[in-house]
Amino acid sequence: MIELDWLLPLFDYAGIAVFAITGALAALRKRLDIVGVVVLAAMTALGGGIVRDTMIGTLPPAAATNIGYVIIPVVAAVIVYFWHPQVSRMLGVITVLDAAGLGLFCTTGAQKALLHGISPLHATVLGVVTAIGGGIIRDMLSNQVPEVLSDRQLYAVPAILGAAIVAIAWALDVRNGWIIFGATLLAFTLRMIALRRSWQIPATPEFTT
Amino acid sequence: MIELDWLLPLFDYAGIAVFAITGALAALRKRLDIVGVVVLAAMTALGGGIVRDTMIGTLPPAAATNIGYVIIPVVAAVIVYFWHPQVSRMLGVITVLDAAGLGLFCTTGAQKALLHGISPLHATVLGVVTAIGGGIIRDMLSNQVPEVLSDRQLYAVPAILGAAIVAIAWALDVRNGWIIFGATLLAFTLRMIALRRSWQIPATPEFTT
Amino acid sequence: MIELDWLLPLFDYAGIAVFAITGALAALRKRLDIVGVVVLAAMTALGGGIVRDTMIGTLPPAAATNIGYVIIPVVAAVIVYFWHPQVSRMLGVITVLDAAGLGLFCTTGAQKALLHGISPLHATVLGVVTAIGGGIIRDMLSNQVPEVLSDRQLYAVPAILGAAIVAIAWALDVRNGWIIFGATLLAFTLRMIALRRSWQIPATPEFTT
Repeated sequence: MIELDWLLPLFDYAGIAVFAITGALAALRKRLDIVGVVVLAAMTALGGGIVRDTMIGTLPPAAATNIGYVIIPVVAAVIVYFWHPQVSRMLGVITVLDAAGLGLFCTTGAQKALLHGISPLHATVLGVVTAIGGGIIRDMLSNQVPEVLSDRQLYAVPAILGAAIVAIAWALDVRNGWIIFGATLLAFTLRMIALRRSWQIPATPEFTT
Repeated sequence: MIELDWLLPLFDYAGIAVFAITGALAALRKRLDIVGVVVLAAMTALGGGIVRDTMIGTLPPAAATNIGYVIIPVVAAVIVYFWHPQVSRMLGVITVLDAAGLGLFCTTGAQKALLHGISPLHATVLGVVTAIGGGIIRDMLSNQVPEVLSDRQLYAVPAILGAAIVAIAWALDVRNGWIIFGATLLAFTLRMIALRRSWQIPATPEFTT
Repeated sequence: MIELDWLLPLFDYAGIAVFAITGALAALRKRLDIVGVVVLAAMTALGGGIVRDTMIGTLPPAAATNIGYVIIPVVAAVIVYFWHPQVSRMLGVITVLDAAGLGLFCTTGAQKALLHGISPLHATVLGVVTAIGGGIIRDMLSNQVPEVLSDRQLYAVPAILGAAIVAIAWALDVRNGWIIFGATLLAFTLRMIALRRSWQIPATPEFTT
């Protein structure tokens, strides 16, 4: 697992930068002030990982010890704040990168849980939490129902797939960096196909009481 | 305390199933998608216990190590999603079971805190957090003011009573399973009487500034 | 650092009492019931510190072991609930005390993080979290966008200043109680000047996508 020890931080940094950008854009859309832009950038990027690390019991979480985890979201927030016309013209690219971040976070999140002795089933859940937790906190801070819980997009499903593959491979004693890459690629690809074809999960049945 | 070691998990499973059902029903009422139904079921069922375990410092929390804590909320969410007409016809039963879950969670939550060296005063608070925390998180995820903080029902009060009895008995060195049963029954009964007689806590005084 | 060991708890108690009062007032404004008034008082007062202690990894957090941290918010909530006309006539005083609480929490929060081996950069962040975290949780529980993220007031900025001074002094090996006092006073003074002169951070640029 030597390659992984070296790659995991790079995976994390890349995902954190992209998620921070989407958080900052969401804050601007909500007309928050610069404090709100920085906080939403940071929480979107780090929120899922903080919850994961708390649930694993590895405190302080990476977000409270890693210098990059503070610098990257703040830089991303400042860039989006001052150059948002340019940034928002790249929304197509950002959507692709967000799908990549989703793929990265679900697999590296599950991997970190497994490395700390969490069961494959719970590691799958914590991988998904890593991937979608930041977005949920972002929407809660924006005072809206979290998109991932209500917009019928295939967003959590690719994360479940990616995290589950890593966890199942681990359970079968297949524990190398290629599994992470493969599962990340698969989750990313499924997310991209769902975006392109506008796939939706079924509408919730009518309900009244 | 041998009986308790054996009974505590059963208490927890029962409460988790009921709380998951009420969370899933709340998600359907809010027209969340299946992801939202599963997440609200899980967070309503597990949220209070996760906060309690974090506050006690027993990480990973039970929710991240116990297989049943993942299976039960997912199964409950799927059942509610597909059979909600049948489930919602049993709302009377669910209300009774939710009152039982309230009683169970406040006492077992306080007990777990006491077993880990938390003071009786704080154990009372953590028992209440176990009982009402999941519902608060459910309502925050649904983008509404938590019912337990605003609807004037006697919901937190029975939880305070149940948790306080367990904590006071512990302080008096009365530490057996019957205390848990008795306090659970008392909290449950008070909740049921309050429901039947539509008891309310006083309206908040008018306030303007 | 002998003086600090003795003074830190007093600092904390003072800040907690003031923040609890502002939380209880916010709950009354939202027409929450007495349960909501107590919960908002407690979470406004303790929420930032609980998040800080979790991020530092010092669990149970102070809020789960210190008797005063339970008593003070409950007493503050009850006082506000029953004597809110008198309390709200002192809103000028409360605003000053809230500024003092902001100054206290950002410096003592950063200090606690530093004492537990957190880096100066992260300690600055955790100092700010201690100061503004409770207010954010209060607003999330009230189902509104957190004021500190959107109202363009100089509220987070003085906290950043105060926490950063403590962290930088620590990095320069200047570690005595006077730094805490000085930084607290500076953060408080900046907050008060900003209030008096109605200073605002710049409006967020128009944004549409």
